[in-house]
Amino acid sequence: MRAVDIIQKKRDGGELTREEIAYLVQGYSNGEIPDYQISAWAMAVYFQGMNARETGDLTMEMANSGDQIDLSPIAGIKVDKHSTGGVGDKTTIVLAPLVAAAGVPVAKMSGRGLGHTGGTIDKLESITGFSVEMDRERFFAQVGEIGAAVIGQSGNITPADKKLYALRDVTATVESIPLIASSVMSKKIAAGADAIVLDVKTGSGAFMKTLDRSIELAQAMVDIGTHLGRNTVAVISDMDQPLGFGIGNALEVKEGIETLMGRGPKDLEEVCLILGSHMLVLGGKAKDDVEARAILKAHIEDGSALEKFKQMVGAQNGDASQIEFPDTLPTAKTFIEVKAATSGYVEGIQAEEIGVAAMLLGAGRETKESVIDLAVGIHLSKKVGDAVEQGNTLAVLHVNDASESKVREAVSKVLEAYRITPEPVAPQPLVYALVTKDGVTRY
Amino acid sequence: MRAVDIIQKKRDGGELTREEIAYLVQGYSNGEIPDYQISAWAMAVYFQGMNARETGDLTMEMANSGDQIDLSPIAGIKVDKHSTGGVGDKTTIVLAPLVAAAGVPVAKMSGRGLGHTGGTIDKLESITGFSVEMDRERFFAQVGEIGAAVIGQSGNITPADKKLYALRDVTATVESIPLIASSVMSKKIAAGADAIVLDVKTGSGAFMKTLDRSIELAQAMVDIGTHLGRNTVAVISDMDQPLGFGIGNALEVKEGIETLMGRGPKDLEEVCLILGSHMLVLGGKAKDDVEARAILKAHIEDGSALEKFKQMVGAQNGDASQIEFPDTLPTAKTFIEVKAATSGYVEGIQAEEIGVAAMLLGAGRETKESVIDLAVGIHLSKKVGDAVEQGNTLAVLHVNDASESKVREAVSKVLEAYRITPEPVAPQPLVYALVTKDGVTRY
Repeated sequence: MRAVDIIQKKRDGGELTREEIAYLVQGYSNGEIPDYQISAWAMAVYFQGMNARETGDLTMEMANSGDQIDLSPIAGIKVDKHSTGGVGDKTTIVLAPLVAAAGVPVAKMSGRGLGHTGGTIDKLESITGFSVEMDRERFFAQVGEIGAAVIGQSGNITPADKKLYALRDVTATVESIPLIASSVMSKKIAAGADAIVLDVKTGSGAFMKTLDRSIELAQAMVDIGTHLGRNTVAVISDMDQPLGFGIGNALEVKEGIETLMGRGPKDLEEVCLILGSHMLVLGGKAKDDVEARAILKAHIEDGSALEKFKQMVGAQNGDASQIEFPDTLPTAKTFIEVKAATSGYVEGIQAEEIGVAAMLLGAGRETKESVIDLAVGIHLSKKVGDAVEQGNTLAVLHVNDASESKVREAVSKVLEAYRITPEPVAPQPLVYALVTKDGVTRY
Repeated sequence: MRAVDIIQKKRDGGELTREEIAYLVQGYSNGEIPDYQISAWAMAVYFQGMNARETGDLTMEMANSGDQIDLSPIAGIKVDKHSTGGVGDKTTIVLAPLVAAAGVPVAKMSGRGLGHTGGTIDKLESITGFSVEMDRERFFAQVGEIGAAVIGQSGNITPADKKLYALRDVTATVESIPLIASSVMSKKIAAGADAIVLDVKTGSGAFMKTLDRSIELAQAMVDIGTHLGRNTVAVISDMDQPLGFGIGNALEVKEGIETLMGRGPKDLEEVCLILGSHMLVLGGKAKDDVEARAILKAHIEDGSALEKFKQMVGAQNGDASQIEFPDTLPTAKTFIEVKAATSGYVEGIQAEEIGVAAMLLGAGRETKESVIDLAVGIHLSKKVGDAVEQGNTLAVLHVNDASESKVREAVSKVLEAYRITPEPVAPQPLVYALVTKDGVTRY
């Protein structure tokens, strides 16, 4: 077998065999196949695509390229959740304790990542003492006892995907649905998921800007799950504005706590209920969405979801009293109000601009070496559909040590992000479609 | 400027600016842009193409990447000729002395190359003592005195093209018309041509298998020439069977000599007259094809073309008496006749199979290290249209030291190459089309 022949086959629209895909991934992993052949192949895939079988095989080969977590010592169906990334997305903080309270074990490995804010584990580190590192034994024990643990990715998970992703990033081959789908799913498979709920964001602040592309990506991932015997569903949710009000690490933990208390932002609560319901159904703890939603609501109302979060925080050496008193979480020194220049109605909030503004204040990493300021960020005062008078506060910047010029830049990013129109704006849907192995349901 | 943005622009069908192309070629040449970005870009070009301006700019950047030969010290319009490669193509051996006899200076740098037989300079080395290496001064002096010199490529000509070609070869990006066209033309420009006659082969034995693709390639090259101010014409000639009868180094020199004497194979003579006529017109030595052809024929008939060849051989330290007595050129020890298994008419001779058979006997290089046997090769006894009786000789293998198994393989390759049909076969055209800056003329 020769790499050049496999590249040519894909270039000419052929379907690669399992052996050919294994040859490429293994050869690339062990350094026998050079970058320049894989980048040419990735560009050929960009143009010619891959079918569900090829994409499934690629996923499995990448999952097999490193450590694989065997979650079978933990009883029950382990349902993982993955979001394709958005601004203000703190659903994992809510969902881990919430579905654990309902009896679905959550053994979650999460990332830090480069982005507008930190990853889930950065956010959780806002809690004093919270530890995201533990060995496999303790991880399993905690999930067994409490039902939930969220830790950092450890060990050598999907090294082939890491290598391929880094290459795609510099060769303009990121935006290929089979390559994106297999990258996401390989990590879920290697992390030991029995079933997977995907939250595919769509809109200006999402990687996929249009609903059609988002559905296409969701279908590719559901197809992979089906091909590999993992029950998978995907929810297409809105990212035409940030989710909730808070963007920034401690700000997002606070909002998560409020949501677990039943008084969080309505959009965040609703997305969590939808995703959580699917997790309960896939986890065998509810027969359908209606039952699942009722169970989740009950766990919020009776305080057991919040209690579960406290248990989890305590088990991971965090100060659980901060969950009771969120004001003791890191707080910024200065608050700067961004005011509306015109009156009207909020038509859209460019989520990416808000994210960049939060990063400028220090909430996220610009480079791998950046140190995150957990206290800073942005709190939105107005969301899409809200009426605005000139001079009203649109958002509040939570600032610590950012330079004056960075703050000025953040203010103008926030102003640019808000699109204000004279006409009243109809409320936006939160969820656009559901994709399962049986097909697509658009709402 | 970033390479990844340029790749993405081409991936999305954009037109690259001159600066973007220069950035890529120069960065690749000096090692600042890695192979893996250039291979992804080449694959994007494969799918999205490049227009005449982009292709011209790429050609010029590659020509500029190394030494450029300045032929201006040689008086007259220097017309170069390039063939896209075929089996039994010995036109340069005929044309160099023939057009030089008619007053067009030929200062030709030629390759050895990997292939079924050697390149032109390997073939010329069949002549005892013939030297293909000389310094620039002597090269120019010889062209000034005699009107013709054929030497090996020396110095650092188009290193960017060499590097890119090697990369394309292993990344399935060879078959891209703008990349092929710019590769060929960059070498001609760097070698100092004022005007260029291209011989684009078409058919089973050519790189381009269909007439449409061959015309497309010819147009791309003519467009480049026009864009860069070099008068360029392309002849689309047949390669559905080898050109002439002889395939092998000394065999081809002998056939070249016969053609200069006016008693060579008709197809070879005709192709040489067509290409030579264009060279004379572009070189300003004839006003049109009709006049040019008459001039060339006169130089064959009066012996001045052959005399010019003797002068050139003598000037390059070759034994000119061998031109008078071609039997003194290297000759094989054994002759093996390949006989027809059925009666009928020759419908086609798969040129590539014949080429491989010649290589198996030692006429060409399988690897860079292979040593060519100048004496061996194949002499075709039947060509397309000829009637054949069962048991007639189709071809004669000229064999020296090839192993029995290689000879057996060569015999079966030759038998496979011949397609014999019961029905009489109409003669095939030798030339299908002419491409100039004014358009395409199909015959």
